[in-house]
Amino acid sequence: MTSREKTANNKFSCTERERAIFEAGIKLATVYHQFVGTPVNIDTVKQLEDTISRTIEVQPYVECAEIKIDRDSFVSDGDTYSYVSLTGDMIDAKVVIALGDSRVTAEMRYDEDLEYPLMYVSKIE
Amino acid sequence: MTSREKTANNKFSCTERERAIFEAGIKLATVYHQFVGTPVNIDTVKQLEDTISRTIEVQPYVECAEIKIDRDSFVSDGDTYSYVSLTGDMIDAKVVIALGDSRVTAEMRYDEDLEYPLMYVSKIE
Amino acid sequence: MTSREKTANNKFSCTERERAIFEAGIKLATVYHQFVGTPVNIDTVKQLEDTISRTIEVQPYVECAEIKIDRDSFVSDGDTYSYVSLTGDMIDAKVVIALGDSRVTAEMRYDEDLEYPLMYVSKIE
Amino acid sequence: MTSREKTANNKFSCTERERAIFEAGIKLATVYHQFVGTPVNIDTVKQLEDTISRTIEVQPYVECAEIKIDRDSFVSDGDTYSYVSLTGDMIDAKVVIALGDSRVTAEMRYDEDLEYPLMYVSKIE
Repeated sequence: MTSREKTANNKFSCTERERAIFEAGIKLATVYHQFVGTPVNIDTVKQLEDTISRTIEVQPYVECAEIKIDRDSFVSDGDTYSYVSLTGDMIDAKVVIALGDSRVTAEMRYDEDLEYPLMYVSKIE
Repeated sequence: MTSREKTANNKFSCTERERAIFEAGIKLATVYHQFVGTPVNIDTVKQLEDTISRTIEVQPYVECAEIKIDRDSFVSDGDTYSYVSLTGDMIDAKVVIALGDSRVTAEMRYDEDLEYPLMYVSKIE
Repeated sequence: MTSREKTANNKFSCTERERAIFEAGIKLATVYHQFVGTPVNIDTVKQLEDTISRTIEVQPYVECAEIKIDRDSFVSDGDTYSYVSLTGDMIDAKVVIALGDSRVTAEMRYDEDLEYPLMYVSKIE
Repeated sequence: MTSREKTANNKFSCTERERAIFEAGIKLATVYHQFVGTPVNIDTVKQLEDTISRTIEVQPYVECAEIKIDRDSFVSDGDTYSYVSLTGDMIDAKVVIALGDSRVTAEMRYDEDLEYPLMYVSKIE
């Protein structure tokens, strides 16, 4: 552990497991609030997914991040206005946080019943 | 509890206390990634702080959110270019999440030693 | 004119009128890409409109900015999930740029025929 | 020209050349306000540059967009906190708008004298 990591650790009033859960929340909200509004079309969607994943993996304690953007909103033979502004409802995200002995998986997914893109903790190991 | 809240609860594989911690992480990252980049000057900073606080309080399970933006970057008698683009380092944020019997306080604050605007859990009740 | 304004002017390869048009484009895209994704409900919408207006007026050469957010998406007696994430389609924006002798009005508005929130120049004086 | 493009054209109270200038302003502000705040490090910076370029090219009337992010802020052998949050000062952007017979080049670049990331029109053909 670097001295900066120790400094950071000392600021936390919770267990390592709880901190991993906290970090998972940070990462999903980063996906949402950094990237919602981004122009995207059928030709750029794959690259945007990859870039969001890599961007999240840059943040501390991320083991991996998987991003899927729903293709249903795209048209393949449109005009110059046929692109989409990324919304939260279009995003499926899954992040795995590894911190000490804890491993937390959290997901964001549009829930039909809630009519809401819910962020939730799906697994703790 | 509404039926939508029950639906949401069922998606979580963790305790209520852990969920409150997760929600705290979401809220601090919302402050950061939604508002960093916003143009602001000495005349608008108070209103921007209030709006960010109220915006976070709109999200689920927030008891209160307090935002302070550092005034050191502002000049009071500048020209048309004398405004600032909000950065994470300028923001002090504190959110209190209340969920069932759990109450979690989390903060974001620039840490001189880390040279980093750290988000951390500061209290769990 | 300050020396910084002169320095900026010298970078432009176009007329003052054309520069005012350029600045108008900048301001409307700032509204869109800075604020889309912001959580908002019926209680905070007025304050958010005001803050976006004031934020745009902080930027260079803005005479005024008017922001209206469509209330149709809001419910007044919802649960904790009954808020909205601001979208471009919900925003009506009008900015007036004044630069030297030129005055340019530009607007952003959802266009039913285009199914697109079009930004356009509506008046040059 | 598609019927949607005609519908859009009819909303504009300016020449095609002026509209190209307006579109250039929109694109540069999109780069700034959509992507400032994005986590990035030395390993992801190239991909982020490409994705921002492609994202801007998705928008109407963009012939090309070139994005360069300053590497000076990155360290190559840091710890988990050694990444950077993208700022406007780090970005060099150049967009070329082609609309009818007009071709407009606009740039965003940090100006040392202004201490400001200036957006400006650099060429009209």
